[in-house]
Amino acid sequence: MSGLYTDLYELRMAASYLRRGLVGPATFSLVIRALPPERGFLVAAGLADALTFLERFDFDDAELDYLRTSRSLPDDAVQALRDLRFTGDVWAVPEGRMVFAGEPLLEVTAPAAEAQLVETALLNIVTHQTAIASKAARCRLAAGGADLVDFSFRRTHGLEAAMAVARASAIVGFAATSNTEAGRRYGLRVTGTMAHSYVESFPDERSAFAAFATDYPTDTVFLVDTYDTLGGVRTAIDVTRQLRLSGPIGVRLDSGDLARLAVAARQLLDREGLTDARIVASGGLDEYAIADLVGSGAPIDAYGVGTRMGVSADAPYLDSAYKLVTFGDRPVMKLSPGKVTLPGAKQVFRGAGGGADVIGLRTEVAPPGHTLLLRPVMAVGQRLATTDEYGPADDVAAARHRFDDDLARLPEPTRRVYDPSTPEPTISPALQRLREDVLGALLDRRAAERLPVSG
Amino acid sequence: MSGLYTDLYELRMAASYLRRGLVGPATFSLVIRALPPERGFLVAAGLADALTFLERFDFDDAELDYLRTSRSLPDDAVQALRDLRFTGDVWAVPEGRMVFAGEPLLEVTAPAAEAQLVETALLNIVTHQTAIASKAARCRLAAGGADLVDFSFRRTHGLEAAMAVARASAIVGFAATSNTEAGRRYGLRVTGTMAHSYVESFPDERSAFAAFATDYPTDTVFLVDTYDTLGGVRTAIDVTRQLRLSGPIGVRLDSGDLARLAVAARQLLDREGLTDARIVASGGLDEYAIADLVGSGAPIDAYGVGTRMGVSADAPYLDSAYKLVTFGDRPVMKLSPGKVTLPGAKQVFRGAGGGADVIGLRTEVAPPGHTLLLRPVMAVGQRLATTDEYGPADDVAAARHRFDDDLARLPEPTRRVYDPSTPEPTISPALQRLREDVLGALLDRRAAERLPVSG
Repeated sequence: MSGLYTDLYELRMAASYLRRGLVGPATFSLVIRALPPERGFLVAAGLADALTFLERFDFDDAELDYLRTSRSLPDDAVQALRDLRFTGDVWAVPEGRMVFAGEPLLEVTAPAAEAQLVETALLNIVTHQTAIASKAARCRLAAGGADLVDFSFRRTHGLEAAMAVARASAIVGFAATSNTEAGRRYGLRVTGTMAHSYVESFPDERSAFAAFATDYPTDTVFLVDTYDTLGGVRTAIDVTRQLRLSGPIGVRLDSGDLARLAVAARQLLDREGLTDARIVASGGLDEYAIADLVGSGAPIDAYGVGTRMGVSADAPYLDSAYKLVTFGDRPVMKLSPGKVTLPGAKQVFRGAGGGADVIGLRTEVAPPGHTLLLRPVMAVGQRLATTDEYGPADDVAAARHRFDDDLARLPEPTRRVYDPSTPEPTISPALQRLREDVLGALLDRRAAERLPVSG
Repeated sequence: MSGLYTDLYELRMAASYLRRGLVGPATFSLVIRALPPERGFLVAAGLADALTFLERFDFDDAELDYLRTSRSLPDDAVQALRDLRFTGDVWAVPEGRMVFAGEPLLEVTAPAAEAQLVETALLNIVTHQTAIASKAARCRLAAGGADLVDFSFRRTHGLEAAMAVARASAIVGFAATSNTEAGRRYGLRVTGTMAHSYVESFPDERSAFAAFATDYPTDTVFLVDTYDTLGGVRTAIDVTRQLRLSGPIGVRLDSGDLARLAVAARQLLDREGLTDARIVASGGLDEYAIADLVGSGAPIDAYGVGTRMGVSADAPYLDSAYKLVTFGDRPVMKLSPGKVTLPGAKQVFRGAGGGADVIGLRTEVAPPGHTLLLRPVMAVGQRLATTDEYGPADDVAAARHRFDDDLARLPEPTRRVYDPSTPEPTISPALQRLREDVLGALLDRRAAERLPVSG
């Protein structure tokens, strides 16, 4: 059950390869061709779901019946899919690593039909999760040391997208999520307090706060802006005293001028001796708003970041491609305007001391002091175990360490939230030579092919 | 299995309501507060998935165990969730109808805990699918009579998002999708031909085209831009003749100056007598690019629309809210800056002859010549059958008729792709009076509440 999670053209091409004995092996390279505006780097994510998809890839009877009865494919082609599984090899950049334009995030080598059939899902999963992790990473950069909480569940693109967002934001250092199912699924810290509707369900704010604090007396966070924000802070202080709440309380500001309200709330809380009370801000936040709040010196301890992070609002997709780079022994490339590809299976070499990466051929030896970014993660359709010093390539905790590691080495101009600089990887001499060879052969053939019609 | 598809605060609030016997009933109203830039209207979508979610809402043992062992909720609260189901009533705008800012798309009346617990999922589903249907509808407006095909699967936010996108685009009149699973799930027409990788898998373009047309001899569409677009068109013509293909062929242009290439391709095809050949354009298209191509007179018969539609790139979320409007017998509203709500269960009245809608109370009688936009779709947790003259409120074919019907009546300034005008619904006198009454009472209470701290 997953074989139909693909574009119909993948099925038609795969059927044609199988019928013609075009078994490849083919290597496809998944790259982000260019970074969106206001992105200095991307953060690799989605590998765990991608590998799970590949492991489970098959066609069940209902799917085969659909293909037959809908006449989407000829009967012999449907028959050929019955026993098809993904039996290929995968190299990938472990989750959490920073990546740049043109660097392969993942490379598949498999019989042509298999490699083709999984294109749609691999592109979908890796593009989405990398876009979100990259956006969330910018919130982390903006927040300085403040905590970040994923509040995006209600406005992601469907319920499953929310799971991916919670996980991607955890990879780049979000402290918690509001998403309960994601908490269970990935072992993330889950937090949550009250909404405006809770306050409105009581005759007045004071009775709502008292009820909530009675039911949840530790780490109670009061949502204070239902009627009047600073009035709400005062009520929260009263209730905290009245109920003699022991742990530090929090107040959440969800609307209005957050910088000004945070300062005023801090004064009220401190004046009443609640110096350990935390101020949480939320409401339409993203890395730009957070950077502005931090820049203004607003005394905010934690940010709830929702929709704009959860859909990567200013760059909701990436310019990703899954391109054939070798077929059999033959390196290939295409020449479509703006979409010219680099031939051959690749590797990315990263220098220990910073500086731009080198994109080369997988068969090349790493330049001195450089490590290999792509690691083998699947062989003959089987997931491989640990791949680097942090742990499995698709584990959240390991990914978080990798991200922290890359973040620590990121040059300042690339860390900027506004107008960051974007390191451009260089191409190794060996890859450049291969590219010129393949290009020359293609141009010769193109000239020859034109003759029959134009002549 | 679905109870954890919610923000933790919903669970905490629900547990508190249950413990305190706050059974409501509560009515929540799901509205889009304001339209994004460049939107003259929205198209209601997501109801089918929303109702399925409500029907299946429950907590299985594993979910209850997680809540207990993670200490997310006290034990008595976990116990109280064990037998909880959604037993409420739902009124909603049927899918496919155009809606405007401030109009409820859906209203839930249920015991407070139930109504609260389903907030996250309902907002998520309806916001996402309405955003996509609205974006796709603009592609329909731009395309004139040309066919539209959903090509978005590879870059939606996850695999499940792609299903919702295929369905939403079908509602607004897309002719087909490339998404095979969506085709099966929703009975949509699925189309697909070849990718660049297919062409590159053969020694040359000519042998690739010949192989594909041999395997798929009817309605063959050749992707012509792998090496050189017009060279590809000539090769497609040669192969069509050589194989004596009977049905009309097509050529797909996927890069470069599509307007110029379409004119040149049309000339080549016509000159060779292939006047029934179709020209398909794709590659980074959205309603703006389509409008420009149509405006330039480019002879394009069909548009493949992918990523930008599938993520609603210029407006990837909507300013949606799920707000408490009555609790028990008491109408409620909140005063948070920029988020003031209208109290009471509502109805939207639409005039037969066009003109702005009227938002009123559900108990009001429709003004003469107006019909009711919100229909009962669920009662006591049970889905209801047909609700209007087109069929079930959550059926794709019925939704498509509703959309066509609303589209036919849409005034020209609202149909524009660039800078459309946006009709603003008016508020009925009865709803205005209720709002003033509730507001007055709230302001009085706020003044009274301030005294203890400030005095």
